[in-house]
Amino acid sequence: MKTAIVGTGLIGGSLALALKKTGFASNIIGVDKNPDNLQKAMSLGIIDSQATLPEACQMADLIVLAIPVDAIYYILVEVLDKIHERTIVVDMGSTKSKICQLVKDHPKRQNFVASHPIAGTENAGPEAALVNLFQGKKAIICEEQRSSKPALELAISMYKTLEMNIEIMEPEIHDLHIAYVSHLSHISAFSLGLTALDMAVKEKDMFKMAGGGFSSTVRLAKSSPEMWGPIFEQNNENISAALGEYIDHLIAFKKAIDEGNTTRTKELMEKAAIIRSKI
Amino acid sequence: MKTAIVGTGLIGGSLALALKKTGFASNIIGVDKNPDNLQKAMSLGIIDSQATLPEACQMADLIVLAIPVDAIYYILVEVLDKIHERTIVVDMGSTKSKICQLVKDHPKRQNFVASHPIAGTENAGPEAALVNLFQGKKAIICEEQRSSKPALELAISMYKTLEMNIEIMEPEIHDLHIAYVSHLSHISAFSLGLTALDMAVKEKDMFKMAGGGFSSTVRLAKSSPEMWGPIFEQNNENISAALGEYIDHLIAFKKAIDEGNTTRTKELMEKAAIIRSKI
Repeated sequence: MKTAIVGTGLIGGSLALALKKTGFASNIIGVDKNPDNLQKAMSLGIIDSQATLPEACQMADLIVLAIPVDAIYYILVEVLDKIHERTIVVDMGSTKSKICQLVKDHPKRQNFVASHPIAGTENAGPEAALVNLFQGKKAIICEEQRSSKPALELAISMYKTLEMNIEIMEPEIHDLHIAYVSHLSHISAFSLGLTALDMAVKEKDMFKMAGGGFSSTVRLAKSSPEMWGPIFEQNNENISAALGEYIDHLIAFKKAIDEGNTTRTKELMEKAAIIRSKI
Repeated sequence: MKTAIVGTGLIGGSLALALKKTGFASNIIGVDKNPDNLQKAMSLGIIDSQATLPEACQMADLIVLAIPVDAIYYILVEVLDKIHERTIVVDMGSTKSKICQLVKDHPKRQNFVASHPIAGTENAGPEAALVNLFQGKKAIICEEQRSSKPALELAISMYKTLEMNIEIMEPEIHDLHIAYVSHLSHISAFSLGLTALDMAVKEKDMFKMAGGGFSSTVRLAKSSPEMWGPIFEQNNENISAALGEYIDHLIAFKKAIDEGNTTRTKELMEKAAIIRSKI
């Protein structure tokens, strides 16, 4: 199967490595608007050839979009317009409602599978690609009834090849849930980073004391702004609600601390500890 | 050297395992107000014998306090009152100002070394003890000039045996820095847990989508309320300031998202990413 991957960074690069290793694709065509990424992906053996997006639309049987969600939104209609009748397109974006809404009446909607493999690291670019990035993780497919049977089967087969666990859900549910269990975590990390960096301007040695707890909570602050800006934009309502609730919990915590109410801080912590059974 | 460890949970248990493994102490006397912990610590081979606190004060050459900071505050004067002239006491609490203030004029202040090994996990109890918990981490010693030379040398020797990197600093600086690089991280995690759990009441399947990012940011929410409540109480001013600044950053992030200002969210993320060079 001729497979084109649009976006040869962390996600696209990891996909290419895994699809080649498993034999799902013998040959990967890389598409990237960033020529540096393409060159790195070629020299790392992640992709086998490169093409422009219109060329890939002509050549490939499967086109996977592994680019920021604003870029998916920007090119998806053009891609569906240009592909052959049997070409299948799968996106890997971290938001689903706006993307599904965009193409819901497109004549080639059935050629498209809206999906989100929940995998990543805080690093970016082809050199961050990991062959086992997807292994054992969840892959979400949305609006499966709008994809043709062959398109859906191919996407499922690809994710099973990656050893992912597939869940089917509606895009609105996906976007609501992911706001709370991923998008909010990123904003909490970015804001922790900002808070600590502000204080470190005065307190130069402060990071000497940072241990595993700090690293763990702030790690995601290293994530790519190019990827995350558009996610926050496309999922703004859910994220804003989650963030508002998060701020309310922090204000309640601060109030208990300011009042010296340790009974209350302990109650809040006991309640939060129920998360033990969930993750 | 006869070594008593007061508190046989994660920290005290890990210390006991490491001191025995390295031969620093051949025999560990365990002290714990919780008889279950003592029994578990005995049966796991973490401690060799058990004693009451007054007994330990009579028997030991070195007494290490590995208990919550309110308990340290509560027993430290009594311990210094009861020990022999040459007995050395080291505390491992995560706050230092209040504890140092409490004993600054005690006639046996020189027998005491105020310290904080920056190591831990989100788990608690003797069964969570890890022999290499401290390895490669930082140990902070405060007000070193108030400890006698033999006391300071013994504490440093103990931390070096654990392969820790020792830093000397004033208690006020310790408490300020640790608020930003540890205590705040814990509150961010507890509040993330509370936010997600609230939504999960309505959205039962939500945690299906939780991946590595969520786990990483929320892991500390599993930490012991018994340990953390008193830390928040003793370091309340620094934590309240840090938490206030964190909330301000989150509000700024929310405003940018609500306004659809992706240029601004990207700016905030670019700035936060400087944390890359700090951890």
